[in-house]
Amino acid sequence: MRDLSRGQQWLSINTATVRAQWSLEEIVHALERHHIPALSPWRDQVAQCGLKKASSLIKNAGLKLSGYCRGGMFTSVDQAGLTAADDDNQRAVDEAAELGSACLVLVVGGLPGALAGRALSHDMELARQQVEDGIGRLLEYAKSCNMPLAIEPLHPMYAADRACVNTLDQALDICDALDPGNSGALGVAVDVYHVWWDPALESAIARAGAARLLAFHVCDWLTPTRDLLNDRGMMGDGVIDLAKIRSWVEAAGFKGFAEVEIFSSLNWWQQPGDLVLRTCIERYNSAV
Amino acid sequence: MRDLSRGQQWLSINTATVRAQWSLEEIVHALERHHIPALSPWRDQVAQCGLKKASSLIKNAGLKLSGYCRGGMFTSVDQAGLTAADDDNQRAVDEAAELGSACLVLVVGGLPGALAGRALSHDMELARQQVEDGIGRLLEYAKSCNMPLAIEPLHPMYAADRACVNTLDQALDICDALDPGNSGALGVAVDVYHVWWDPALESAIARAGAARLLAFHVCDWLTPTRDLLNDRGMMGDGVIDLAKIRSWVEAAGFKGFAEVEIFSSLNWWQQPGDLVLRTCIERYNSAV
Repeated sequence: MRDLSRGQQWLSINTATVRAQWSLEEIVHALERHHIPALSPWRDQVAQCGLKKASSLIKNAGLKLSGYCRGGMFTSVDQAGLTAADDDNQRAVDEAAELGSACLVLVVGGLPGALAGRALSHDMELARQQVEDGIGRLLEYAKSCNMPLAIEPLHPMYAADRACVNTLDQALDICDALDPGNSGALGVAVDVYHVWWDPALESAIARAGAARLLAFHVCDWLTPTRDLLNDRGMMGDGVIDLAKIRSWVEAAGFKGFAEVEIFSSLNWWQQPGDLVLRTCIERYNSAV
Repeated sequence: MRDLSRGQQWLSINTATVRAQWSLEEIVHALERHHIPALSPWRDQVAQCGLKKASSLIKNAGLKLSGYCRGGMFTSVDQAGLTAADDDNQRAVDEAAELGSACLVLVVGGLPGALAGRALSHDMELARQQVEDGIGRLLEYAKSCNMPLAIEPLHPMYAADRACVNTLDQALDICDALDPGNSGALGVAVDVYHVWWDPALESAIARAGAARLLAFHVCDWLTPTRDLLNDRGMMGDGVIDLAKIRSWVEAAGFKGFAEVEIFSSLNWWQQPGDLVLRTCIERYNSAV
């Protein structure tokens, strides 16, 4: 297991962590200031900056992309919706390739309409089939762009509205069905926030192996958690045994970044961005 | 699959559903008024009423108990805590027997201290072992009282603070380890709110079979869900395909009550109790 107690060689910042404080350009400069070597930007922030400009900024700063957030949202009640998702996901692959990302993270979608507040279907089995079919279609395109796709299982509390893939084993079942040769083109993003509770986590991580483990996201689970979406904790402030999970991921062969992704309207989004980044570094050293 | 579209023969009300409106005594009288044949009371409400009085009230009203809420909370950082939980759980078995309950529901506990806001351990594996050991000890006592124990897997969003048993398969693994003969003394409580998202749910219900399916709880998952604990929905107001899950449970041989358990500080706890019960009956007929 790698020693992360000094430096920040394997630290990446998901830009959502400081999105309330800074634009993408400001985030890039801040990462340079703090000598943080990698980031994972969100599409809306890239769009606001402009893709070409974002790409130049990131490359000029010498930053790596641990991932790109995000494609997915494959579910729909009609063919037009499925096709629109396909088109949008191909653009996400293009952007990820332009930015030189390690992978495109997929948040697969839940029941159609649920995220807007009214589910148009209650059929989880159909949603899950649409997800597998959609990933299958996107995979062909992504392969042609040499952009690995990372399925991110989301916590079951997001099953209705954000992602109907809710365990690592479920994500790996999709990988095995669509990429039986384990080509490296399809894998998973393991975010501790979503999977830490799973009694099968250790075995699922071992099952994934190095070729499927495309991203590793860290934060913490607070007790109490006051909001389903935006009350994630800083590493070390919650209950997740991060070192244990990292030991499993590294035992499986993962050698990439620990990407900090914290949605925190109640705390960290209200703090100065530089303080947030300093804390990320400190906790990367002490708690991850 | 039974036809629930008329009457309320298999309807039970978990007293938490109207706990903000009424005392246990008032709930018993309201159930009589609404011709609802069963309930599942909580220990604190029984204690407030007095055990003997509660037992008389319930029996005089001709009500059945679909369950008794609840035993569990097996985890601790010290032996004193484990012993105190054992003692308290034996009293819960005694009360359930006195009340003539179908089973004692077990919410097994999470990381010690987490429910009070500060986890004293981050070791989920240890917590899960303590749970299995604690159920094993309690099972001997419960058998001597002829009181079946129903392990209730809780939604993974409660893994830290309320229950480290988070899937039906995990609960069944414990059942199989402690009661390999499938004696009827140990089984599960299937609450749709906790398990609806699980891609393995159908197979886990089939695995459970009639002898392990001791209770079936219904409510609904709202989108958005505004509070992790107290924003459950009335059946039909959310995204859960209740009829499908009931079809699985009944195909496995379950013949008991559909117990309505709704924690809803944001809506139903603010409504008149009689309106809540009328709505429970209506939705039991139309949505369960």
